[in-house]
Amino acid sequence: MKTNPGRFFEDYRLGEVIAHAVPRTLSGGERALYHALYPARHAVYSSDPFAQSCGLREAPMDDLLAFHTVFGKTVPDISLNAVANLGYAEGRWLQPVFAGDTLRAESTVIGLKENSSGTSGVVWVRTRGFNQDDEPVLEYVRWVMVRKGRPDAPAPAAVVPQLAPVVVPEALVMPRRLDFTRYDFALAGERHRWGDYAVGERIDHVDGVTVEEAEHMLATRLWQNTAKVHFDATAREDGRRLIYGGHVISLARALSFNGLANAQMVVALNAGAHANPCYAGDTVRAWSEVLERAETSAPGVGALRLRLVATRGAAFELRGADGKYLPEVLLDLDYWALIPL
Amino acid sequence: MKTNPGRFFEDYRLGEVIAHAVPRTLSGGERALYHALYPARHAVYSSDPFAQSCGLREAPMDDLLAFHTVFGKTVPDISLNAVANLGYAEGRWLQPVFAGDTLRAESTVIGLKENSSGTSGVVWVRTRGFNQDDEPVLEYVRWVMVRKGRPDAPAPAAVVPQLAPVVVPEALVMPRRLDFTRYDFALAGERHRWGDYAVGERIDHVDGVTVEEAEHMLATRLWQNTAKVHFDATAREDGRRLIYGGHVISLARALSFNGLANAQMVVALNAGAHANPCYAGDTVRAWSEVLERAETSAPGVGALRLRLVATRGAAFELRGADGKYLPEVLLDLDYWALIPL
Amino acid sequence: MKTNPGRFFEDYRLGEVIAHAVPRTLSGGERALYHALYPARHAVYSSDPFAQSCGLREAPMDDLLAFHTVFGKTVPDISLNAVANLGYAEGRWLQPVFAGDTLRAESTVIGLKENSSGTSGVVWVRTRGFNQDDEPVLEYVRWVMVRKGRPDAPAPAAVVPQLAPVVVPEALVMPRRLDFTRYDFALAGERHRWGDYAVGERIDHVDGVTVEEAEHMLATRLWQNTAKVHFDATAREDGRRLIYGGHVISLARALSFNGLANAQMVVALNAGAHANPCYAGDTVRAWSEVLERAETSAPGVGALRLRLVATRGAAFELRGADGKYLPEVLLDLDYWALIPL
Repeated sequence: MKTNPGRFFEDYRLGEVIAHAVPRTLSGGERALYHALYPARHAVYSSDPFAQSCGLREAPMDDLLAFHTVFGKTVPDISLNAVANLGYAEGRWLQPVFAGDTLRAESTVIGLKENSSGTSGVVWVRTRGFNQDDEPVLEYVRWVMVRKGRPDAPAPAAVVPQLAPVVVPEALVMPRRLDFTRYDFALAGERHRWGDYAVGERIDHVDGVTVEEAEHMLATRLWQNTAKVHFDATAREDGRRLIYGGHVISLARALSFNGLANAQMVVALNAGAHANPCYAGDTVRAWSEVLERAETSAPGVGALRLRLVATRGAAFELRGADGKYLPEVLLDLDYWALIPL
Repeated sequence: MKTNPGRFFEDYRLGEVIAHAVPRTLSGGERALYHALYPARHAVYSSDPFAQSCGLREAPMDDLLAFHTVFGKTVPDISLNAVANLGYAEGRWLQPVFAGDTLRAESTVIGLKENSSGTSGVVWVRTRGFNQDDEPVLEYVRWVMVRKGRPDAPAPAAVVPQLAPVVVPEALVMPRRLDFTRYDFALAGERHRWGDYAVGERIDHVDGVTVEEAEHMLATRLWQNTAKVHFDATAREDGRRLIYGGHVISLARALSFNGLANAQMVVALNAGAHANPCYAGDTVRAWSEVLERAETSAPGVGALRLRLVATRGAAFELRGADGKYLPEVLLDLDYWALIPL
Repeated sequence: MKTNPGRFFEDYRLGEVIAHAVPRTLSGGERALYHALYPARHAVYSSDPFAQSCGLREAPMDDLLAFHTVFGKTVPDISLNAVANLGYAEGRWLQPVFAGDTLRAESTVIGLKENSSGTSGVVWVRTRGFNQDDEPVLEYVRWVMVRKGRPDAPAPAAVVPQLAPVVVPEALVMPRRLDFTRYDFALAGERHRWGDYAVGERIDHVDGVTVEEAEHMLATRLWQNTAKVHFDATAREDGRRLIYGGHVISLARALSFNGLANAQMVVALNAGAHANPCYAGDTVRAWSEVLERAETSAPGVGALRLRLVATRGAAFELRGADGKYLPEVLLDLDYWALIPL
């Protein structure tokens, strides 16, 4: 058979390194589409002179654009037969991606555990994205539940990796030459700086976006993500196309500009859950909670650890009395962002 | 509160200069999206060699792309709480915008008048767009009706600015080195030149475009316009998303290629009314009327003052017996374009 | 009348050369949109370093992107009053198109035959696309049925051109310096090479894409194709917008990555039929059949002649007992692609 049926649980080996196909050169075209697809307004990614005033060579690609590009490459090898995307950990952005850069991706299998049902198992991979100079640009761990292809395939020895519950501030990698000491708050859109955010503070980002089928498919294709549930209305029994979870991440992060305009760069992904599926017609809203504050080694640069929640309901909803995510909650993301002191 | 609630009528002061946030670097990506979003075919904006044969460095960004980019920046400060966008005047394009340019915007409050109801008022601003060298690229006046935040806020002294009913031909700014003496009419798509258009002549642009939600939202986001009525289906009582008026301007202008292919560059916006709201599902058509002709200082370049009307009905409809715009009329725009002699 | 009513059958003269309007400069923006509109993953078009490892200067524009751009230019002169697009032949890509290139098009009328009804006729044109250096980049013959404008216009002498049923392998033009001897199959996404494909072999490309109105209109506008049936829901009696046939070609070709990932470059179009109209809501699938294999003069480069069929039904459907295309079949295309030996 010439076509790729995707890997099944029994096809993964612990320690195996999977080189993902189809490297991708990014340009101003991808950047413009990112602005058309998401209400993204963070100034570092919007303006070359603003980025230069922060010590960067020019405006980089949005950190999530780099993430989606790397993630998309992994789909044919990791999640084509996935039943569920279970979590993220230890995500770090290692250097900015600029127009003209070419990204490729590679994943190492770091954990395997068959489910008690014997019909599926959990696969943990650490994925790294590299640029054309083979420098790493980002890395993250994700784990997915994958169907078995042959029910009688023997279960591998269970190995569950020890993952850091959060990237510690000391492990955050500062973009080279990043310097917020001459940061222009008026041009950036808000006056709130690192010291203005208190741990425990919650911010309702107010705005909402009603999502269309054409939009999420344009986005997901742009990242060369091939999972058929996003594109083929006949793929699922209910006839609905599932929106790529990363589309919801980017929508929520872009909405968070309103209240966190200066939380410019995403440098770590501590954890993330796609709490409920998102469909076209949903109106996505977002709220944030400040989880932690840290200093960094870059001049004028502080770090905020933020919970970013996307919901199709009201702000500050999260879990019900049973401790489970409420059905209105779409995303619960834990990340570090860089913000001027 | 960390989020931007927008300004209310009482928050504006006469003479105040508002620097709008989030500068934007434009590239070939924005140009390509403009061609995907609108049936734009004017050769100066489509082809570098054609633009060079007209004396320009390369194909500039469509003048309306520059306008939307500048306009989008003003929304969070000017029209977030606007009840209505009342008019435009004294708009002039001052130099072309090229790929790689970074635009920012600033507005001066030039008029204030509280409505007799005491619940809202009209704010007049003169907005200027600048490039990365702080050179002005365009300017225009617009006035909007803005809600009051506190009903008891005292009314300011009423100041209504004197605005020119039309930009006089002598005030039109010619793009540097523009020269239509070697203009290639075959490549441009039509043979009609300045002398072929008579004052009073009306042109039915024939074609129609049925608008989709995904399209107007992609466009409006691309200009970083944050007004929630365009994106959030729950923001208005009727559950319909209002299409950004500038989207209708660009649709109508692009449709006007068919009959006005040589009216290449937009250099002034004399007046404009968004006569009725436009919604997804509407099929937008356009017609033009020649209002005035003028010579210019640039070699081979004439100017046409044109009325551009967008409608979801038949051509040449405008006003009913009561003098009001017919419900099918979406836009009534008065502008100057440059065309070969 | 200032607007273009399109040409009617009696307006064409045998041997006439029609220079099409509105040259177009392409950039990374068009490339990014191509990736957003189609699930395109062929590595030569996705990655500059990959293309360079194959001897090319950088990643070219997808061959179909170049085709659509040239095709779009011809629409106002050739197919505005077309009743049907009847066929393609003798299509050849003559050199790659890169970001920054400007394309223009010109067509020669090579055949004319009035239909027996006397109300329409068939027009054959050979279209050539040129870059900014006046070098040809592609050429093809297509024939369309065009309405007569005046029923009493005299019938021209019938001339039906002799067209090659297939571009012979010797006539395929290799991109300059193309070399697949250092081809990286892992990065390209599949291990199958020229020798792995047998004549008569059929491949089900498995995936499907449900098409939205916004998507096909964005695509068709991007190619500056002005045929109103694609954009105006009121143009046809059934109120449905017809999807541009080239959109289906690009969808099917992109889907064929899964099973033909190494059939990188399209170098000839032997024949093509748009078997049935495609509408928004259709879920497009694709299958291929290997028709012929040939060697080429370029190092490490073989050629496969492929039938590419798009369908909204099951794989391997084509014709009914009556020899006619089944109603589920959308496209039957016969082309040559280059693949590593």
